[in-house]
Amino acid sequence: MKIDLDALMQAHDVDALLISGPGKHNPMMVYMTGGANLTMGHVIKKRGEAAVLFYAPMERDEAARTGMKSHNYMEYPQFRAALSGDLDQHAAMLQAMLKDAGMTEGRLAFYGQVDAFRHFGIVKGLLALAPELRVADNIDDDVVLQAMSTKDEDEVARIRKMGKITTEVVAKTANLLTSSRVMDEVLHKSDGEPLTIGDVKKQIDVWLMERGSENPEGTIFAIGRDAGVPHSTGTASDVLRLGQTIVYDIFPCEAGGGYFHDFTRTWCLGYAPDDVVKLYEDVYAVNEQLLTEMEVGKPFFHFHKRICELFEEMGHPTVMSKQGTEEGYVHSLGHGVGLKVHELPMCRYHPEGKPSNVLTPRQVIALEPGLYYPERGMGVRLENTYYISPEGKFENLAPYPMDLVLPIKG
Amino acid sequence: MKIDLDALMQAHDVDALLISGPGKHNPMMVYMTGGANLTMGHVIKKRGEAAVLFYAPMERDEAARTGMKSHNYMEYPQFRAALSGDLDQHAAMLQAMLKDAGMTEGRLAFYGQVDAFRHFGIVKGLLALAPELRVADNIDDDVVLQAMSTKDEDEVARIRKMGKITTEVVAKTANLLTSSRVMDEVLHKSDGEPLTIGDVKKQIDVWLMERGSENPEGTIFAIGRDAGVPHSTGTASDVLRLGQTIVYDIFPCEAGGGYFHDFTRTWCLGYAPDDVVKLYEDVYAVNEQLLTEMEVGKPFFHFHKRICELFEEMGHPTVMSKQGTEEGYVHSLGHGVGLKVHELPMCRYHPEGKPSNVLTPRQVIALEPGLYYPERGMGVRLENTYYISPEGKFENLAPYPMDLVLPIKG
Repeated sequence: MKIDLDALMQAHDVDALLISGPGKHNPMMVYMTGGANLTMGHVIKKRGEAAVLFYAPMERDEAARTGMKSHNYMEYPQFRAALSGDLDQHAAMLQAMLKDAGMTEGRLAFYGQVDAFRHFGIVKGLLALAPELRVADNIDDDVVLQAMSTKDEDEVARIRKMGKITTEVVAKTANLLTSSRVMDEVLHKSDGEPLTIGDVKKQIDVWLMERGSENPEGTIFAIGRDAGVPHSTGTASDVLRLGQTIVYDIFPCEAGGGYFHDFTRTWCLGYAPDDVVKLYEDVYAVNEQLLTEMEVGKPFFHFHKRICELFEEMGHPTVMSKQGTEEGYVHSLGHGVGLKVHELPMCRYHPEGKPSNVLTPRQVIALEPGLYYPERGMGVRLENTYYISPEGKFENLAPYPMDLVLPIKG
Repeated sequence: MKIDLDALMQAHDVDALLISGPGKHNPMMVYMTGGANLTMGHVIKKRGEAAVLFYAPMERDEAARTGMKSHNYMEYPQFRAALSGDLDQHAAMLQAMLKDAGMTEGRLAFYGQVDAFRHFGIVKGLLALAPELRVADNIDDDVVLQAMSTKDEDEVARIRKMGKITTEVVAKTANLLTSSRVMDEVLHKSDGEPLTIGDVKKQIDVWLMERGSENPEGTIFAIGRDAGVPHSTGTASDVLRLGQTIVYDIFPCEAGGGYFHDFTRTWCLGYAPDDVVKLYEDVYAVNEQLLTEMEVGKPFFHFHKRICELFEEMGHPTVMSKQGTEEGYVHSLGHGVGLKVHELPMCRYHPEGKPSNVLTPRQVIALEPGLYYPERGMGVRLENTYYISPEGKFENLAPYPMDLVLPIKG
């Protein structure tokens, strides 16, 4: 949680944080400012002190709304040259801002979504001007990501609200599909044209926006063979045919780049062929089994291994036995969810034994078992987002039916 | 234009570009890939050769859609460790990818929205492994930004289409306001509650999304004193009162982070007080005058100076005579518009004499004269986006009435 930042900085020998970039769609800036609508800003937080915001003169109202201690860029004579792209002046301005925030020596961690073209030169310039500064860039010292991995009550409430919006939109999507006319096993719109993946995705976007949310990273709505490739987002011109798996993975956030929710269902319209039912039942059974086993205090990776074991017992290849497999269970069990759709704790690539990848109370995680057979034209994934309560219970933040078959109405 | 990239790289002694980050909401990646829906990717373009895409295994379908030559990250044994945050392995993987793209020595320019925490360490590690590489980070050598500053016909068509969407949404907004009931000079909804800035902005978001566009950087819809602060986005709880200036600055882009359009109108509902009319007439007159003077071949800054001169003749302070003024003309005349809402050519802070800040055919620019008096509770800004044709004519890409007063209906 944010209140843990100072302790984490102490434990990891990080003396200050310097976060920069736009105020929106920039998770670390949103975390520090609460989502101020700034074209560009800097936040400097020295250990043990309140974070300080630096802002452009025209954005003084937005800066004031944050309630943070703040400085106008105009206080720095290097500002104009820095804006014009002068790396040395930019570095000198950073040095002056750091000084005003009380940071003149020690380890400094940089954060934010920044422009790659300039960032290296700016940091190099800063270190040349201020050799007393060192850069904290070891993955183990990523203290902001670690703080973000546990959530306070307000954050959980916001993710829960995004879950409610998500399931409302999922229910509206199901209704759109099941209310469509079927001709030759294909869904049609009232104008007589086939309903396409593109049509459905556009509706999803509008329904999300009507509820004050957006999906900056897109929505996966993929049918048939595409459903068998986990990150295939679907082909806009594809029609919706009965009896094929549809993987619907929706991960919206609060408008402007706030808290996410992550959710997946797999549907078959009208009916499901036997081999799809079998695939679905395997995923469903593994999900149920896993939920009885999930507990705090163990590395997330432990449960990733466990799900691979369960799938392999059923005869499916997995990434555990066959690195790089494109059939069977081809991804990882899950990830933390917050201001980033994928954040700590991580279960696969990220260091297994690290404290931040151990399941602990107050984390919010997505669990996503799935099975993929693109050559057989099918894929199944089921995903829910859970809050681990202070008592260590796993609570599904947005319960919704898991049914495979959506019967067509009328 | 993109076809100018090789010549620009040659002229600026840049041997290769390395663009990274997500495939969406990342202008340089969108420019190179056409907007592939990748959680993460790298593009390497060596001078004189086609750009090569590097992608994650689950995203092979999205990578294939680009039609680019490509490599799966799984080809690189360092991939897992790099994903786990190991900077040295990440650097080694970049070195191997650069080698596969034919880049083993010379000047390399980094691009994309990247995570500040890791970027410096990764580049430092790469340079340690490959001392034959140098980093191109001089503002003058920002060849991608320079290529982007002129547009091909497809790009202009896309910005024009965004302009059409913009003016449709602006017309719908005007209709919403003028159709509202007025009680005690305040607009009300049909449920009897006052219509607020927040209500209007939410509607704008939905109308944009219904048309396949979004506003990742928000919309400015600010009334009264807020209208007098250029980047104040407006206070959500403010009610809409007759006779006050509303600055409505809308800058949407194609959904997913594509081409932008930039547009501003200033409205008074019902009537306008005399001092507001005077302020509006000054801005309108300067805009008209300026349009008769705009021509290619001169630095954009020339016209910024010119607009300040025109405003000062009318008795308004400007940034030219009074750096940092918060009254009068407080910002710059305009900027290029494309995959970034603010891009080259720039007219104020950016180097004045640089070729990329000279007005030339095929640029798309926004011109935004305005006058601000926050203490008097008013601000006026008018903005249109223009295409400079191959013949050097300035074409308003989305003509729309400039009227100040919106009469209330009925």
